[in-house]
Amino acid sequence: MQLLEERIRKDGIVKPGNILKVDSFLNHQMDIPFINELGKEFKRRFADAPITKILTIEASGIGIACLVAQHFNVPVVFAKKAQSLNLDGEMYCTKVQSFTHKRVYDVILSKKFLSAEDHVLIIDDFLANGCALQGLMEIVKESGAVLEGAGIVVEKGFQNGGDSLREQGIRVESLAIVDSMTDDSVSFRKDEWDNK
Amino acid sequence: MQLLEERIRKDGIVKPGNILKVDSFLNHQMDIPFINELGKEFKRRFADAPITKILTIEASGIGIACLVAQHFNVPVVFAKKAQSLNLDGEMYCTKVQSFTHKRVYDVILSKKFLSAEDHVLIIDDFLANGCALQGLMEIVKESGAVLEGAGIVVEKGFQNGGDSLREQGIRVESLAIVDSMTDDSVSFRKDEWDNK
Repeated sequence: MQLLEERIRKDGIVKPGNILKVDSFLNHQMDIPFINELGKEFKRRFADAPITKILTIEASGIGIACLVAQHFNVPVVFAKKAQSLNLDGEMYCTKVQSFTHKRVYDVILSKKFLSAEDHVLIIDDFLANGCALQGLMEIVKESGAVLEGAGIVVEKGFQNGGDSLREQGIRVESLAIVDSMTDDSVSFRKDEWDNK
Repeated sequence: MQLLEERIRKDGIVKPGNILKVDSFLNHQMDIPFINELGKEFKRRFADAPITKILTIEASGIGIACLVAQHFNVPVVFAKKAQSLNLDGEMYCTKVQSFTHKRVYDVILSKKFLSAEDHVLIIDDFLANGCALQGLMEIVKESGAVLEGAGIVVEKGFQNGGDSLREQGIRVESLAIVDSMTDDSVSFRKDEWDNK
């Protein structure tokens, strides 16, 4: 998506360890009209999917998911990291390895909010090795819902998460796929959607 | 706010320990059009305030803040709990005691995203003893920004957080103030805005 690639080139910051910071507009400070444009684009790409619910994971996915959900007119459910005293009853539960925080955490979702009748679109800000996405997919599978696909804002194409999921037949739509990064430049994979 | 009080009466669940669960529409599953109505109401109440930025804290505040921000046409910044490897540079930092999780955690916000030029509206889902809000207020104070007030979805009026902040001169607008709860009923404080 050209708008996003231009914004990453303008405001993204590359840090050692293949970290791409987009915290001035996406996941610390949030540019709301801009993220609404991303929502429109996800809707364009998943226009044919009968989505009933958007699933994401705390924390940085939630705001994006809420803005995206407006374009699908469906509720958001967000999976929570670690046990909370306020969460009781029946839970879907899985474990996720965090690339960013270098630890394993529990991910939980109340069974009340996802069932076999649902058609789920997973939304998240980043996809690198795909661990968070795999965790959310396990929850969807356990619920019996249909996974329609995953909508990702920024995919790190040089890590194997996205391509590995596509090889498994999962529909992964990333609005920008970073193929390589250096201190002063970011290269994107050609976007087949830009000519549609 | 009548719409919210009715929804809490219909879908809220009272649990032992003065816990009010509103996770079917507000902070686990999220009813997006409904939360947009809350956003409109916050805008009505803070229409006279020259707000430049909405501040919240992860995780459950983020989605609400993003939807509310659309009605103010300003960016959201969200404070993060605990140190993240992706957060570097200069940070505002404070400590917050969590009522829900019964522990103390660090709350951080990049200095890039809040400065003395800003007029800040804090948005959060719950206000009980006010610890999270106090932490966010400390960050606003450290930044030199003007705190215009706090917009809260549900205040537990039987705990002292909201009234204590109002006594300090902070403008706290809560869309529903719960005065008492029993297993099968929730009583709300009279809402002076409903006749405006």
